[in-house]
Amino acid sequence: MNTADLRLPVDVPSTALFTDHYELTMLQAALKAGTAERRSVFEVFTRRLPNGRRYGVVAGTGRVLDAVENFRFDADVLDFLRERRIVDEPTLRWLADYRFTGDIWGYPEGEVYFPGSPIMRVEGSFGECVLLETVILSILNHDSAIAAAASRMSSAAGDRPLIEMGARRTHELAAVAASRAAYVGGFASTSDLAAGFRYNIPTVGTSAHAFTLLHDSERDAFRAQVASLGRDTTLLVDTYDVAEAVRAAVEVAGPELGAVRIDSGDLLLVAHRVRQQLDELGARDTKIVVTSDLDEYAIASLAAAPVDAYGVGTQLVTGSGHPTCSMVYKLVARAESADPQAPLKPVAKRSTGGKFSLGGRKWAARRLDQDGIAEAEVVGTGEVPPELVDRRLLVQLVKAGEVVGREPLDVARARHQAARANLPLSATQLSRGEPVIPTEYVQGRPGN
Amino acid sequence: MNTADLRLPVDVPSTALFTDHYELTMLQAALKAGTAERRSVFEVFTRRLPNGRRYGVVAGTGRVLDAVENFRFDADVLDFLRERRIVDEPTLRWLADYRFTGDIWGYPEGEVYFPGSPIMRVEGSFGECVLLETVILSILNHDSAIAAAASRMSSAAGDRPLIEMGARRTHELAAVAASRAAYVGGFASTSDLAAGFRYNIPTVGTSAHAFTLLHDSERDAFRAQVASLGRDTTLLVDTYDVAEAVRAAVEVAGPELGAVRIDSGDLLLVAHRVRQQLDELGARDTKIVVTSDLDEYAIASLAAAPVDAYGVGTQLVTGSGHPTCSMVYKLVARAESADPQAPLKPVAKRSTGGKFSLGGRKWAARRLDQDGIAEAEVVGTGEVPPELVDRRLLVQLVKAGEVVGREPLDVARARHQAARANLPLSATQLSRGEPVIPTEYVQGRPGN
Repeated sequence: MNTADLRLPVDVPSTALFTDHYELTMLQAALKAGTAERRSVFEVFTRRLPNGRRYGVVAGTGRVLDAVENFRFDADVLDFLRERRIVDEPTLRWLADYRFTGDIWGYPEGEVYFPGSPIMRVEGSFGECVLLETVILSILNHDSAIAAAASRMSSAAGDRPLIEMGARRTHELAAVAASRAAYVGGFASTSDLAAGFRYNIPTVGTSAHAFTLLHDSERDAFRAQVASLGRDTTLLVDTYDVAEAVRAAVEVAGPELGAVRIDSGDLLLVAHRVRQQLDELGARDTKIVVTSDLDEYAIASLAAAPVDAYGVGTQLVTGSGHPTCSMVYKLVARAESADPQAPLKPVAKRSTGGKFSLGGRKWAARRLDQDGIAEAEVVGTGEVPPELVDRRLLVQLVKAGEVVGREPLDVARARHQAARANLPLSATQLSRGEPVIPTEYVQGRPGN
Repeated sequence: MNTADLRLPVDVPSTALFTDHYELTMLQAALKAGTAERRSVFEVFTRRLPNGRRYGVVAGTGRVLDAVENFRFDADVLDFLRERRIVDEPTLRWLADYRFTGDIWGYPEGEVYFPGSPIMRVEGSFGECVLLETVILSILNHDSAIAAAASRMSSAAGDRPLIEMGARRTHELAAVAASRAAYVGGFASTSDLAAGFRYNIPTVGTSAHAFTLLHDSERDAFRAQVASLGRDTTLLVDTYDVAEAVRAAVEVAGPELGAVRIDSGDLLLVAHRVRQQLDELGARDTKIVVTSDLDEYAIASLAAAPVDAYGVGTQLVTGSGHPTCSMVYKLVARAESADPQAPLKPVAKRSTGGKFSLGGRKWAARRLDQDGIAEAEVVGTGEVPPELVDRRLLVQLVKAGEVVGREPLDVARARHQAARANLPLSATQLSRGEPVIPTEYVQGRPGN
């Protein structure tokens, strides 16, 4: 696939530079030792959810597939590695031919996860797999953190639409990924044009205080906006005095005014007053959009207020207190020799300081109760117990180097809604708690 | 300047998409109303520092200059805006010719800042300035948050070098900007190859547990690493048993072993034991590198431990609890007509909900006491008092659309060290406190 077909707002000729220095020096040492070709299994998982969170949300899977496909060491990159003496000539030659030729399995995007869930499994030679560590973790750790926050906000918002408005609060390209992850987590639209361009997410906009201040009066500003954008526009009503602004807004646009936006003050109180005023002015269909440092708790507190949509910025793009997940990429099994037929041996770091890892190539399944509600995340090695075969969570994403798991973003979005709906009700409580279902480990006979 | 000269790891054909939808619709309405050409002044500032922080660090300025230079609406972008009906045809024609032709002044990169500091000032027509809001804030809010965390960590680390290792914990391109900001804030090097490629920051690497687990024994892994990378390499010693690993490391590499890395456990205790063991084995010059969820407090707590370098990941790239700044981009003055000679009129949103803004085009200066230590951030409109003329903080970055403020990253890094050294000593206390100097506002006679 040509990356130009992706209509990237920034063209990424190669994602191979999104790699830590040590991945390449480990490769060099393993090439020399003859161990780089050992068949290996790496898994992405997290040992814990952010403090108090009840479930995680897998996001970024589609971006991982793009990154793996674009992972190439072109001449520019090789020149850099040579000039900086990062690796030796045999390693540079190996890198020049690099294509990922292995398999990737993973939780499909939008699925929920729990501590220990093997969110992604990368299989191939040690050399080809170890190089992907940094970029895979960057994407999954960032995007899943945003999606988890988005999911909490969308369950707090109920049927009211959420607008992602956080571009200005995070790195300009992280913002594009954040819009995408927010959409997976349940947001309806974004302010970020790059996200609209790249991922076809609906974009929306209102106006800023600067627009009001540019004009000689608030009424002039409203007239200018309505004349150009139509009566269906959203007028910002809190630059000077809200009540005066609402009166002017309806005078200028008529009762067909699309919406008003409130960006400051006690939103609960102001929304009630504005709703009453709009109704008295006959603008019964004019909607109220609120913005102003909202998070899932503020959204929940406005559930009974006459609010029609929420715009969320800072707290969304910073993961509402948890801007990253603690996903790691660990070698869990590897062959005992470079022979492609050599059996895989489970491996794990021996715990020091509480960092526990379970060795072995793993499967995962979600056990449901008789009502179809999740009751446990079951993670195991070896054969899958027959009663769980239909509940397996990992799907194939890359097969012998070919991406086979690409899907439209709306599919991931719908999957998330369905997956969350199958969790016990307490999953969507905002208060701190334990993971809503436990993770059980089973060690089966070799197989699978 | 050709963007290819920048050796971008990702080629950015245009930064114009890093823009919120409403910037374009406001432009459309202002073009129709005849107000888009009104001369305008926007300022970037923050109303407060993150809770308990004593100073902020300006970072990202150089990236803002790149973004402004690349801010163009090419055919692809215009097609997108047309197809999605985001703006009308007259606006599309205006955008097709877009080049920023105004002036930008700002605090130079690496400088410290306080609440109210006018960190950047953008002057030109309303239309050309309003479009830059989102991308300027994205860059400054992200990069300054990272630099502030880096600065605290580097003052806690004293003379010991800090290695930025957070790429896997944040968006893959945010990681590159984070390495850059960390370097400005005092870090010595990065693990991120893209940051080395793009910004010439020194890259370093050790090895991962996966490398040890790949081999049949820890000793095999150490032999493979030393054989390929030399005795000066850093061996990871906490995969199984630290004391055994240290013994094996020195046996394999000899007392010339470069360093060992400890990534888990009670770092204070383990570092002391490892130092003693290394010394007993004659490896007196072998260094100890520690990593494992370090932040500025953990670094400070290791001040008396025999540690030679710190690797910092998660807490650096997430701003150590504050992943974004609360910088805003506000219209502070604008002409009363489109006449280029029309005088500027200060404007400000009237406060509701505690959002206070001071109108008018501002200067800033740092008043020093007789020992040359900062005692106040002075922000004013109108003429600069004579005693502060030499202490002015804003420098010209863009003049009539031409970038004039580009500088090497090492200059910003050195500036930060100097600026921090001129703050009162309590600036570098890690405990929560007030901004280390107050911000004073003065309203002068018109002028400047």
